[in-house]
Amino acid sequence: MLTLYDNHDSGNGYKTRLMMALLDIEYTYVEVDSVNGETRKGPFLEKNLNGRIPVLELDDGTYLPESNAILHYLGDGTSFVPTDRLDHARTLQWMFFEQYTHEPSVAVARFIVRHLAPDHERQATLPAIRQSGHAALAIMEDHLKDNDWFAANQPTIADISLFAYTHMAEDGGIGLSDYPAINSWIARVRQLPGFVALEDT
Amino acid sequence: MLTLYDNHDSGNGYKTRLMMALLDIEYTYVEVDSVNGETRKGPFLEKNLNGRIPVLELDDGTYLPESNAILHYLGDGTSFVPTDRLDHARTLQWMFFEQYTHEPSVAVARFIVRHLAPDHERQATLPAIRQSGHAALAIMEDHLKDNDWFAANQPTIADISLFAYTHMAEDGGIGLSDYPAINSWIARVRQLPGFVALEDT
Repeated sequence: MLTLYDNHDSGNGYKTRLMMALLDIEYTYVEVDSVNGETRKGPFLEKNLNGRIPVLELDDGTYLPESNAILHYLGDGTSFVPTDRLDHARTLQWMFFEQYTHEPSVAVARFIVRHLAPDHERQATLPAIRQSGHAALAIMEDHLKDNDWFAANQPTIADISLFAYTHMAEDGGIGLSDYPAINSWIARVRQLPGFVALEDT
Repeated sequence: MLTLYDNHDSGNGYKTRLMMALLDIEYTYVEVDSVNGETRKGPFLEKNLNGRIPVLELDDGTYLPESNAILHYLGDGTSFVPTDRLDHARTLQWMFFEQYTHEPSVAVARFIVRHLAPDHERQATLPAIRQSGHAALAIMEDHLKDNDWFAANQPTIADISLFAYTHMAEDGGIGLSDYPAINSWIARVRQLPGFVALEDT
């Protein structure tokens, strides 16, 4: 059976838990206290030297880090990973956008609000981070005005990847009220068969 | 024929130019002055609303942004994109590492040194960025001590992706002398049939 090393509050981890729920894959869950530095200590670094959750352990003991790579592994062979050459690249385009442009703003704002002290020096970075977050959301909104999904006209791992931190952007003070197409897409993701909310994973 | 919108000094762009050279793909090259903001203006934003080069234009006028997604599109169907499920995911694992952990430090240090004024406020961030860059390189060194390539025991798009900014890390003041395995891997990449240096693309 697969084993997931993860933190219950992580959006990156939730991506992989949601994917396994949608694909009806059973797995063993191991909680890691990433907020208090457990990912930076020896036993975890043997699983991922980069010191980040989630990490998926395969049946043979192989460790696979990087949430979006885990999504690809889990979804490979299903409709969530398109096989058409352009559709496949387009799916990955949005996942690289997620990691480079979206996560460092939308997810980081949430982390600062939820996990850092009110007088932590990084609180001062919030206005700029929220501005970057809105810029990322505006790019998504523009795409979703004309498309139900991010690639291949069907739900793919790009939607799962982007859903995780987008649907809880307001936790970081990045409001979603100005993005009607994003809100419609969030509702579509919630209606996928097997969908589970973060708090139920 | 494919058209590449790119900036000659961009490592993200060089990834895609190197890939096309290795695969002997001809293309039309269009220089974009990304350093002076041309990517943030109307005509370019119609190609990529995220305002970043490189963007690949396909024969039918479709635009594909995100350097690593372009690599996947170009390499799909060749040995540079493994089809084995785990090898494919492992390839992508290193490419997401590249975009989330490696590029924001190794590439950004180079950008600050080469393109920002000596009194620019971001110069003060260089020590921390270089430290993050060395942490990323240490993760690569650890892998390359026991492996010739990043995934599938053969050159893949993960190697092309990571080569671009790694081999010019010293431009940003991130020295490579303490990473013998990285230096050996750089030499292996340079020996791939069809290899071209950045200045020759």
